[in-house]
Amino acid sequence: MWNAAMHAELIHDHPDYGFEIPGVRFNWRTIKEKRDAYVRRLNEIYENNVTKARIDIIRGYGKFTSDPEPTIEVNGKKYTAPHILVATGGRPAVPPDCEVPGASLGITSDGFFDLEELPRRSVVVGAGYIAVEIAGILSTLGSKSSLLIRRDKVLRTFDSLISTNCTQELENIGVDVWKHTQVQAVTKSPNGLLEVKVTSSEPGHKPAVKVIHDVDCLLWAIGREPNTEELCLDHVGVKVDAQNHVVVDEFQNTTRKGIYAIGDVCGKALLTPVAIAAGRKLALRLFGNQQCARLDYSNIPTVVFSHPPIGTVGLTEDEAIAAHGKDNVKIYSTSFTPMYHAVTQRKVKCVMKLVCAGKEEKVVGLHMQGLGCDEMLQGFAVAIKMGATKADFDNTVAIHPTSAEELVTMR
Amino acid sequence: MWNAAMHAELIHDHPDYGFEIPGVRFNWRTIKEKRDAYVRRLNEIYENNVTKARIDIIRGYGKFTSDPEPTIEVNGKKYTAPHILVATGGRPAVPPDCEVPGASLGITSDGFFDLEELPRRSVVVGAGYIAVEIAGILSTLGSKSSLLIRRDKVLRTFDSLISTNCTQELENIGVDVWKHTQVQAVTKSPNGLLEVKVTSSEPGHKPAVKVIHDVDCLLWAIGREPNTEELCLDHVGVKVDAQNHVVVDEFQNTTRKGIYAIGDVCGKALLTPVAIAAGRKLALRLFGNQQCARLDYSNIPTVVFSHPPIGTVGLTEDEAIAAHGKDNVKIYSTSFTPMYHAVTQRKVKCVMKLVCAGKEEKVVGLHMQGLGCDEMLQGFAVAIKMGATKADFDNTVAIHPTSAEELVTMR
Repeated sequence: MWNAAMHAELIHDHPDYGFEIPGVRFNWRTIKEKRDAYVRRLNEIYENNVTKARIDIIRGYGKFTSDPEPTIEVNGKKYTAPHILVATGGRPAVPPDCEVPGASLGITSDGFFDLEELPRRSVVVGAGYIAVEIAGILSTLGSKSSLLIRRDKVLRTFDSLISTNCTQELENIGVDVWKHTQVQAVTKSPNGLLEVKVTSSEPGHKPAVKVIHDVDCLLWAIGREPNTEELCLDHVGVKVDAQNHVVVDEFQNTTRKGIYAIGDVCGKALLTPVAIAAGRKLALRLFGNQQCARLDYSNIPTVVFSHPPIGTVGLTEDEAIAAHGKDNVKIYSTSFTPMYHAVTQRKVKCVMKLVCAGKEEKVVGLHMQGLGCDEMLQGFAVAIKMGATKADFDNTVAIHPTSAEELVTMR
Repeated sequence: MWNAAMHAELIHDHPDYGFEIPGVRFNWRTIKEKRDAYVRRLNEIYENNVTKARIDIIRGYGKFTSDPEPTIEVNGKKYTAPHILVATGGRPAVPPDCEVPGASLGITSDGFFDLEELPRRSVVVGAGYIAVEIAGILSTLGSKSSLLIRRDKVLRTFDSLISTNCTQELENIGVDVWKHTQVQAVTKSPNGLLEVKVTSSEPGHKPAVKVIHDVDCLLWAIGREPNTEELCLDHVGVKVDAQNHVVVDEFQNTTRKGIYAIGDVCGKALLTPVAIAAGRKLALRLFGNQQCARLDYSNIPTVVFSHPPIGTVGLTEDEAIAAHGKDNVKIYSTSFTPMYHAVTQRKVKCVMKLVCAGKEEKVVGLHMQGLGCDEMLQGFAVAIKMGATKADFDNTVAIHPTSAEELVTMR
């Protein structure tokens, strides 16, 4: 979907690059059907791989029993094993209707993929990366979109450069960002469209109640909840935290010997490759004779498919100052217009920040938003994981003309 | 121009991403004028920077004189200085008309930027990166293009994966690659178009003479020559090699004390950022009290703006085997269809190779061609310059979904 939105953005620039196009019509169904087919194909491939590895798939809802040995009951049948892995993931949170009346009239990121048509009028609630990505896609593809956030910026756990710049970029692409805003109630009009009643309370101003009319897509992206409640984890003594995430140590062990947990259900670094990497390490530890194998959760690189994309790894400036002291942190940053936009009327800048710590200026954080930052990050993440210093960056000859070269030529 | 070609490529994919377009017209002049204006703007910026740094610009052709102190004469006036830098660059080579009659009817990469219209029928001669880039742009933008190469592959100094794949990709985008082919003569028809007479000699076949008719753009990209002949370097004892490149040591010293040379004129790693980096090091050595400052010419990353782009750094597989022995070299490679193409009819694969040496599997070379490889390389170049091993790559969590993640998940 992000690539479809990228096409929509480039269409704006066609005339600047000499391509005259008399008119464009976007058909959501085309890309939806192709995407669904692709996902089905992927799922078949994964299922085939599981079958080829001679793994039995048992479909059903599993619950731990109170048997003395860790035991799971599925469809009335009991299973036990010396090693049991909980990898039930999570699901998008929706406020209960008792807190926000009508909340259940909205959809979540799961429902987004079921949409049969591009919504005309979308309201996305949330400030995390899922909210940012979906609001960006909807708006870029032509849906009039509002993003409701509780504070004044999106991505507030990211470095301030990203959080500020991304909020600005959302507005640049036409997303109407409602700051200091929370949903009070949702109602369905006779015409089938939603009315979203919100309270906006700018600091220093009286809270104002407003209504967004004729909404055909209200999407909650306010966080994710782990799928743990119905597993009966208490029957086997597997502890969960206050948010119901399974408590694990750094080796993915739960509080019950022989039961492990991996992925979103643990509530840490909710990313597919993190779960895969943690799974590989656990397999090595249990069956590969590598007793110390464990995933190091530091310096995990992340990309947000916003417009333009965000790449980030390591500590934010604030985190680095908290960890190393203000005097031991040096910041390098830049903001420029990528060469792609040299000839376009639409200008989208690229911002970058290196967070360096100590005398040797070890690079402890890298944060950027701009064209190409999605593919740009992985290699820098390798260097940073290796302990790269600013001097290591500077010693590398720049690749011209790219945006990435700015990261090795900062002053 | 590469970005313009990228637009042309994406226009093919618009229907696959749901965008219906009734028709497209490409206007070369639009992008040419914008590009020229951008280059003028850049040149003004550079000139302003020079002026701001209180540097006098003397315009004219300089020649070394036979005075006892190193002296340059420009427009009849003599100049001397304790430090003199030769940075006269190079120019595209064209075969002399006595060797290839009519060769001067062709243009070079310089002339490419003067073209007022997209040629209808282009012939590009050469197998290096300039030939590959220009043939790719012309073909993608709609010029019927032939590329004449002396052997069976382009980019023969690159890793074999790249050289093979790039030749294939040129053919995929519609470039007619004439292998084992050399130009014999060029003549101008009464209609103003060129006839290009060539000899093709497939190994094992009799050489065949063929004529390419109605060519409105013959472009030589057969190499570059240093601008040294008229400098009278012999007057000051500055040696040049058999190809007229200025001979320098690793500190950019020529054979005459107080005279240095940098950039294409030295014939090594003909890249803008290399010249800049070497210049910075020289300035640090001469005026910054860093007596050992010099540019390390190993592991210089390079991008070729082909379709799709190529990224490469370090040793090729053959070079690594020559340096470390076959038993000490381990190759990891992959070929896949990037997710962008999951829904497109046009499929362009991404190929990647890691060349590792020794027991510790130090990554001594990385070669790739695919969507996004241009921005992908810089960070990996930092890691490789730092001495990254395959384990360092594997220890970095993948970023999903990107193409770059394949480089840290190779098996």
